[in-house]
Amino acid sequence: MSRQVKNILFVLVDQLRWDYLSCYGHPHLQTPNIDWLAKNGVRFEHAYVQSPVCGPSRASILTGRYMSSHGVMSNTDPMPLNEKLFGEYLRPLGLKTAVVGKTDHRPDLGALARYGIEPESEIGQRIIYRDFDPYDRFIGLHADPVAKPGLQYNDYLNEQGYDGDNPWQHWAQAVVDDDGNVRDGRIWSNSKYPSRIPDQHGESAYVTNRAIDFMEEMGEEPWCLSLGYYKPHWPYVANDPYHNMYPPETHIPVQRADVELEGHLYLRTHHQIRLSKVFSRKNARDEIVTAYMGLVKQMDDHFGRLLTHMRETGLIDNTLIVFTSDHGDNLGDHWCGEKDLPHDCSTRVPLLIYDPSPEADGTRGTTETRFAELIDILPTFIETAGGDVSEHRHLLEGRSLRPLLHGNQEMPWRDYVISEMDFSLREFGRLIGMPLDKPRGFMIRDEQWKYATFEGEEHPMLFDMHNDPHELNDLGDSPEHAAIRADLSAKLFHWLRNLKHRSTVSYDELGWRYGVEFEDNLGILIGWWEDEEGKNF
Amino acid sequence: MSRQVKNILFVLVDQLRWDYLSCYGHPHLQTPNIDWLAKNGVRFEHAYVQSPVCGPSRASILTGRYMSSHGVMSNTDPMPLNEKLFGEYLRPLGLKTAVVGKTDHRPDLGALARYGIEPESEIGQRIIYRDFDPYDRFIGLHADPVAKPGLQYNDYLNEQGYDGDNPWQHWAQAVVDDDGNVRDGRIWSNSKYPSRIPDQHGESAYVTNRAIDFMEEMGEEPWCLSLGYYKPHWPYVANDPYHNMYPPETHIPVQRADVELEGHLYLRTHHQIRLSKVFSRKNARDEIVTAYMGLVKQMDDHFGRLLTHMRETGLIDNTLIVFTSDHGDNLGDHWCGEKDLPHDCSTRVPLLIYDPSPEADGTRGTTETRFAELIDILPTFIETAGGDVSEHRHLLEGRSLRPLLHGNQEMPWRDYVISEMDFSLREFGRLIGMPLDKPRGFMIRDEQWKYATFEGEEHPMLFDMHNDPHELNDLGDSPEHAAIRADLSAKLFHWLRNLKHRSTVSYDELGWRYGVEFEDNLGILIGWWEDEEGKNF
Repeated sequence: MSRQVKNILFVLVDQLRWDYLSCYGHPHLQTPNIDWLAKNGVRFEHAYVQSPVCGPSRASILTGRYMSSHGVMSNTDPMPLNEKLFGEYLRPLGLKTAVVGKTDHRPDLGALARYGIEPESEIGQRIIYRDFDPYDRFIGLHADPVAKPGLQYNDYLNEQGYDGDNPWQHWAQAVVDDDGNVRDGRIWSNSKYPSRIPDQHGESAYVTNRAIDFMEEMGEEPWCLSLGYYKPHWPYVANDPYHNMYPPETHIPVQRADVELEGHLYLRTHHQIRLSKVFSRKNARDEIVTAYMGLVKQMDDHFGRLLTHMRETGLIDNTLIVFTSDHGDNLGDHWCGEKDLPHDCSTRVPLLIYDPSPEADGTRGTTETRFAELIDILPTFIETAGGDVSEHRHLLEGRSLRPLLHGNQEMPWRDYVISEMDFSLREFGRLIGMPLDKPRGFMIRDEQWKYATFEGEEHPMLFDMHNDPHELNDLGDSPEHAAIRADLSAKLFHWLRNLKHRSTVSYDELGWRYGVEFEDNLGILIGWWEDEEGKNF
Repeated sequence: MSRQVKNILFVLVDQLRWDYLSCYGHPHLQTPNIDWLAKNGVRFEHAYVQSPVCGPSRASILTGRYMSSHGVMSNTDPMPLNEKLFGEYLRPLGLKTAVVGKTDHRPDLGALARYGIEPESEIGQRIIYRDFDPYDRFIGLHADPVAKPGLQYNDYLNEQGYDGDNPWQHWAQAVVDDDGNVRDGRIWSNSKYPSRIPDQHGESAYVTNRAIDFMEEMGEEPWCLSLGYYKPHWPYVANDPYHNMYPPETHIPVQRADVELEGHLYLRTHHQIRLSKVFSRKNARDEIVTAYMGLVKQMDDHFGRLLTHMRETGLIDNTLIVFTSDHGDNLGDHWCGEKDLPHDCSTRVPLLIYDPSPEADGTRGTTETRFAELIDILPTFIETAGGDVSEHRHLLEGRSLRPLLHGNQEMPWRDYVISEMDFSLREFGRLIGMPLDKPRGFMIRDEQWKYATFEGEEHPMLFDMHNDPHELNDLGDSPEHAAIRADLSAKLFHWLRNLKHRSTVSYDELGWRYGVEFEDNLGILIGWWEDEEGKNF
């Protein structure tokens, strides 16, 4: 079979740090299946998310736009009705565009209600599923307080004999302690125990199976499948034997310094969050990292099954595979749990792209050090599917990575990446004493420096990524770095002024009179001056 | 009748400079009817539009939001589907919300098509008319090249015996020269002649009549009427006797300096636009200003008829009246025609508010020097109609002016105003050699200074409004003003970072867990750490 891209497999893992894969240098966590992509594709060394939290980051992926452009700033924000999403770009290019597993697009039901659009109507469904067709959609967290009926994974678990309304919570995320008691795996101190159910029925196994089902059902029809592994996101519940595969001696060291405890206002505020406090407790980090690594290993094993299937069916020769994550996980670094802040452990992610076509043969196994942003994924897919990215340049703020995949070294490229932070769903407003929607941050990272500015705090953060790659020495107040801060601040200001605020007119529509005299085509509109000889001015 | 606000009359004139009314100091143009509002209400000395072009400025009025927030950046940009408009706020407060005359809201028909919503369907109509009910809607310019069928004013003209498909153009905007020949009034050199039709059938007369019709039809039902006078916007065609009422000796002097011809890149670029060149021709400014002043006078006379009607019917005692304009007109100032640039002749407008209620008695006839932005109008109306502005604070970027109308001197108020400029529908892109959507500008004006930055040009503009009120001496390059520029630039950056990008979640929805522990209400979601004694952390 000739090698030519026909399908797209987009593997979007949740909360996977950039450095917890062996191809990104983890010394003890071997991920040979994911590494296969690095060996046979391009490994992006500097890939950044546009916001280190699920909803906003995924909204940037789905729209190809920065957070300030699409306006989805926290996990509970619905997607504005004017934004054009993934499926709306890719379906017209002939791709069946579907999702299996985790996704995070909240349709704006409030706007539908305002306009009198029934969610179940044809128009309503078209709006709601403008990201993907819902093959086996799963918002990720399915805990009782937020669970909605109809989760296919729950039906599957019921079929396997795991009873109840929400076996996701009461079986898959529940654990068995050393005495054989069932305990709630969502309590982080229970992460050392294995799930009540075996690996073969775990989430990562299930979504992998469903991806294989999808590929088989599609037959010869071209597709773009978004495969969302929810793990290693919390609840940190791994199935046996992954739950205790990685004892502390296999962990990479925590990166934190005492000086950070007296550090930036926003960092100190994050230290007050419950999950940050947990990571400062004895044993907690050890147990959680053990589970986290097990979950990564488990996901890699199942991803390997998928690759095997694709090799056996020949799909490996006509499918572009993109592997990435929506954000990282502090895991105790900087005395924090969760994500949210601009450090690499939160904002930097793995990005691996395997392109089977001969044009990519020259870059197989290479490392790309130029900056990637996850808003580049949608333009990359559009171009891969034969679309014209420039047609959408009034909306798309990312760039197609295809030239990089095909070895173009000369193309002018971006000098920096941007990530935006919103703290409205944390307790920052209350803790800092600001209105709850005010605490926000903007990060810019260029080749050597990372700068971040935060609302309500005049001091920025500044890190020297060459000499302090673990970002422990904040130079935000250092007098000798004033010029560097001013330069990065000016770049951030320039970036913000040039966001694509105009979303309803394409460049071509706007440009219909560009370079021509308007009234030469249309007749008198604005008018002109005519002198006594009848000459126009 | 007790004086209490029940209705709102919003008079939005097109292209009326702040200084072409006698209450704003014009020495020769007497506008006693508009002046009545100043004598009996509050005259805002420093009112600024959020963009000096019709479409974007009016979009800011309709949404209460800045241009970068709503994304309507030029006259041809449709309003994004997610934006909430005027009527959607005011109708639920019990006001019939209608428009007579000029308005400028382009529904996003492209988005409707994408979602399969028929414009004529109930949903489509709800989306299209979310600004106003279309009592007698008129987009303003109705020239053949852009005219759409169904203009009620054309039906009216036909009924009066003015024939043809578009009597707006061929009668109302056509003139009769000294020899009795019919000529096209849209040719600016014909502005010295009167319209073919008498004043009683002119646009300003017509929309005034229709406003009276509306008020009569409404009876006791409360209403908010947006009355849009299109004149003195070009075509500068006044009806007899207004066309030659103001000879050059009644004009205020043109404000331009030779140094401006070698000035800022964007100013020099504007000089190359046809309409700017016209104003540099002998006689042109004199003839156009004569017509412009006549059109203002004509509008004032008809507005006087409306006031008389309101006095006779008692409406004057229960109607809040707001009078303003969407932007100014250079009229040759700074060697420019049209508007577009940050100078006061374009961005500053008259704003007069008459509140009949006793609470406003203390401010009648006063001048308010605190800054107003036209995004304040919608919040003012919401509050006047008994609504709760804070409920919409995730969207509204303007502030209610009601405290100012009621004499509150202590309220903390804004220190600066913002106006944004987009040059995509001018020839700037081609002239400067940039992609056509790139030329943009941001203006900030505080008490003493006006600063504006423009894309693709490192030099900003800076004017000292105290010592150079006509803005002829650009200090954008002056070394001794570097600190002032840095301060204003920092404020602009701060403003831009704090725009209300989040549009789909209200502050209250966002805040449901503000100040409470999320999991105390809902049960386990994110989880926690439990120690051996069962204590949670």
